[in-house]
Amino acid sequence: MNKVFAILVFIGVPLSVIGSLLHWSSTLMFIIYCVAIIALASFMGRSTESLSIIAGPRIGGLLNATFGNAVELIIAIFALKEGLIGVVLASLTGSVLGNLLLVAGLSFFIGGIKFKRQSFNIHDARHNAGLLIFAVIVAFVIPEIFSMSMNEEKTMIFSIGISIILMALYLAALFFKLVTHRGVYNKGDEDGKKKVEEVPEWSKGKSILVLALATLAVAYISENLVHTFEEVGKTFGWSELFIGVIIVAIVGNAAEHASAIIMAAKNKMDIAVEIAVGSTLQVAMFVAPILVLISLLFPVAMPLVFTVPELITMVSAVFLMVVISNDGESNWFEGGTLLAAYFIIGIGFYLL
Amino acid sequence: MNKVFAILVFIGVPLSVIGSLLHWSSTLMFIIYCVAIIALASFMGRSTESLSIIAGPRIGGLLNATFGNAVELIIAIFALKEGLIGVVLASLTGSVLGNLLLVAGLSFFIGGIKFKRQSFNIHDARHNAGLLIFAVIVAFVIPEIFSMSMNEEKTMIFSIGISIILMALYLAALFFKLVTHRGVYNKGDEDGKKKVEEVPEWSKGKSILVLALATLAVAYISENLVHTFEEVGKTFGWSELFIGVIIVAIVGNAAEHASAIIMAAKNKMDIAVEIAVGSTLQVAMFVAPILVLISLLFPVAMPLVFTVPELITMVSAVFLMVVISNDGESNWFEGGTLLAAYFIIGIGFYLL
Amino acid sequence: MNKVFAILVFIGVPLSVIGSLLHWSSTLMFIIYCVAIIALASFMGRSTESLSIIAGPRIGGLLNATFGNAVELIIAIFALKEGLIGVVLASLTGSVLGNLLLVAGLSFFIGGIKFKRQSFNIHDARHNAGLLIFAVIVAFVIPEIFSMSMNEEKTMIFSIGISIILMALYLAALFFKLVTHRGVYNKGDEDGKKKVEEVPEWSKGKSILVLALATLAVAYISENLVHTFEEVGKTFGWSELFIGVIIVAIVGNAAEHASAIIMAAKNKMDIAVEIAVGSTLQVAMFVAPILVLISLLFPVAMPLVFTVPELITMVSAVFLMVVISNDGESNWFEGGTLLAAYFIIGIGFYLL
Repeated sequence: MNKVFAILVFIGVPLSVIGSLLHWSSTLMFIIYCVAIIALASFMGRSTESLSIIAGPRIGGLLNATFGNAVELIIAIFALKEGLIGVVLASLTGSVLGNLLLVAGLSFFIGGIKFKRQSFNIHDARHNAGLLIFAVIVAFVIPEIFSMSMNEEKTMIFSIGISIILMALYLAALFFKLVTHRGVYNKGDEDGKKKVEEVPEWSKGKSILVLALATLAVAYISENLVHTFEEVGKTFGWSELFIGVIIVAIVGNAAEHASAIIMAAKNKMDIAVEIAVGSTLQVAMFVAPILVLISLLFPVAMPLVFTVPELITMVSAVFLMVVISNDGESNWFEGGTLLAAYFIIGIGFYLL
Repeated sequence: MNKVFAILVFIGVPLSVIGSLLHWSSTLMFIIYCVAIIALASFMGRSTESLSIIAGPRIGGLLNATFGNAVELIIAIFALKEGLIGVVLASLTGSVLGNLLLVAGLSFFIGGIKFKRQSFNIHDARHNAGLLIFAVIVAFVIPEIFSMSMNEEKTMIFSIGISIILMALYLAALFFKLVTHRGVYNKGDEDGKKKVEEVPEWSKGKSILVLALATLAVAYISENLVHTFEEVGKTFGWSELFIGVIIVAIVGNAAEHASAIIMAAKNKMDIAVEIAVGSTLQVAMFVAPILVLISLLFPVAMPLVFTVPELITMVSAVFLMVVISNDGESNWFEGGTLLAAYFIIGIGFYLL
Repeated sequence: MNKVFAILVFIGVPLSVIGSLLHWSSTLMFIIYCVAIIALASFMGRSTESLSIIAGPRIGGLLNATFGNAVELIIAIFALKEGLIGVVLASLTGSVLGNLLLVAGLSFFIGGIKFKRQSFNIHDARHNAGLLIFAVIVAFVIPEIFSMSMNEEKTMIFSIGISIILMALYLAALFFKLVTHRGVYNKGDEDGKKKVEEVPEWSKGKSILVLALATLAVAYISENLVHTFEEVGKTFGWSELFIGVIIVAIVGNAAEHASAIIMAAKNKMDIAVEIAVGSTLQVAMFVAPILVLISLLFPVAMPLVFTVPELITMVSAVFLMVVISNDGESNWFEGGTLLAAYFIIGIGFYLL
């Protein structure tokens, strides 16, 4: 798998540069950009993981929190710069839906085909359930409703307030998990297993170098990618919404998809669930609010107000995940249920 | 009980024929039709059960899935033929509400008066909770919201897509329960108990004959019943919505009501819950989507778009049931809570 | 603590009388009234508790149910008399939000700083979860949606019907807890602990006298308090909604806040949760419906129809609490999550 990504990077990145200079067709470039970003994301993921192991669990947790969704963040910043607020909100929605329904769904399904019953830490699942409800039902739904009777300025002030609270709670959650309650909800044998695995793939220097180079490359390509959306939408008959919710989200999260499914197939469901749900929370509680704050630097500020279809699909996905993960167990059918929900939502956004 | 139903069939069916030929008043005929259908439904239930035992659990499960809500299905098809889409959606809503709140409520309440704490399989309860959230929160709410910004054609395409996914997941759930995970979540002693019970009441031939005759009779009476709605509504001051949600649903599910409550009174809560919640899922994931597909054969196609009051009451009922059944235990007060919710909803639809 | 309240009563009550006679500024009087009511509420709480212990658990439960939120009830009745329906609905909303998010949040947070993991009775938590869903999702959301297609008269009939059902279910819940299922879900050692504590602070006579005097004083001050809202709102730029949801709710529940937090700090989480969630249920299932019925005596009747922002914040708070309390455990981070939700909602109502 790693070799495939390496090859894709060494072909995809040069092609991205050449193609954009030679003005190849938008559709072709769109595909090249997407492939290159997916491959680069896997390098970013590996370097972040190595650094996390070297830095120890506390700083490592912070690193993961910051770079885990760096690709989405970078793409979104370039879209914000272009004033494409609709695309950014759509891609945040898509990340939430993709992680909760597609990544977790495939993990449960593929893991469940190999193993009859798989289990994961029920305390983590419930901790995450509380945060999902907080982020999506409280912090996303309430500004939607309140903004209907607010002018733009107040909506923006409310969005900034919520963003700060979301990020503060996200940091508090890290502090809770990594400092005050580290290991409190874990069984001893799990800690034992983890210690064995924790050997960094790359040295500190190499990790930083790879991370820096990959991030730069992703940034360069993302800027170009954003410009292809309009053309690609016309060619395939896709709306901006569909591109944001489904396509960008799958590209931005492809690396996570792969590693979650691999973990599920190895029966390491704790890690698979942590990737899927943890990544959702990162998007909702860290990436989304930071984009609201960053948008203040650009001509058009982005309020934390999703469209009604975006919101209702996120809310549905959260309820489905909370109820399904509530017992700390999974099987292929629960995976199938999550995937079925993703298909319904995908068709919906395609037709919208 | 069985004798009473036999007598009602041998009086009710001839009266249905005679009355409709002699043009008796709509109200009288409405009552006769309802009583005859309730009595016939009990025969259909008994023959399906006998066939299920003879055919073994796998085919039996499929049989139950197909004929369990045959009465609702037949009434709905005749209403569709008349273009009464509103009545069909209302009666689907009523089946969901009736099973979740009235059947389960009465079962919990009456069982709970005899027994202080009753328990049922917690794994089944959680499996069902996931499907309830999927069917009602994902598959019913999302088309409602999305259809607001879609034209009729797209709404219909979306409805068809969702219907196919719902039915596919319903079949997958049967496959999960009857094939891949049969007995995985059950304790040994329960299997023991079930084996003792499994003696068919009727032979294969008699079961098929009874089922065929009862189905034909229900079909004949349903067609006539549908024509009385308008007159009866005027006489009693009932809206079409109230007839669909409350009256048709009670008539269509009366047999299930009776058997669920009898099981609860015998402290067989697994079966009582399976009838109430399983029947809800059957309506939402099998009857509703098949009606969407069947409606394509009639002049007026039926999208999977409920009215807002219908939707919000189903959503409330699902949340209430998911939270109440989450611990695998019931008592009279939980039954009372479900019944109180049913009364509130009943008053609401009466006043609407 | 008790001494502080005593001093505040002996200063606050005379000042309330003097100030209103001398027409001091509304803002000053608003502060004096609030402080006096908070102090008086603590006396009402102590006398109710003494009476409950003397009367035994059954009548004691009824007493608590009646006088537990007497202050809110009294303030609300005077607001109803003035036709301030918006303020009453807002203060009910505020009580629900304040108890669920602020009281429980502070209890979990402060208790959680002293103790790593705190646990409370999981059966009670689930019993309460069912009632929260019933009261807020069924009994509050449904009339909101249905009233959109109802005229005023039908809305009022529906509200009365729901109010009667809510109160009946609330009484049934008391009957369930105090009579039919008393001690069924409790462990033996907890009963032991409770018996030790149950020594009344005051005699029966003194309790009744204190209760009567404090209630009269609260009534007198509440009437005056209600008249200051308009002026205070103008002075501070607070909307009527913000005063009702945030200020009145904090004043009306201050005594409960204090005792819940004290209990949490002593690791008596059962009591802390009972105060927070029990008080929410009392407001939603007893105070709100009784106010609907009382409003029939006044010129302007109050339907059970909240504004959309009020409703959506209550719904969010209920979901958050149900998911967080579902495991029967708490920690500082869960408290922080509830408080974060309260801040978001507070900012929202301030800006609205």
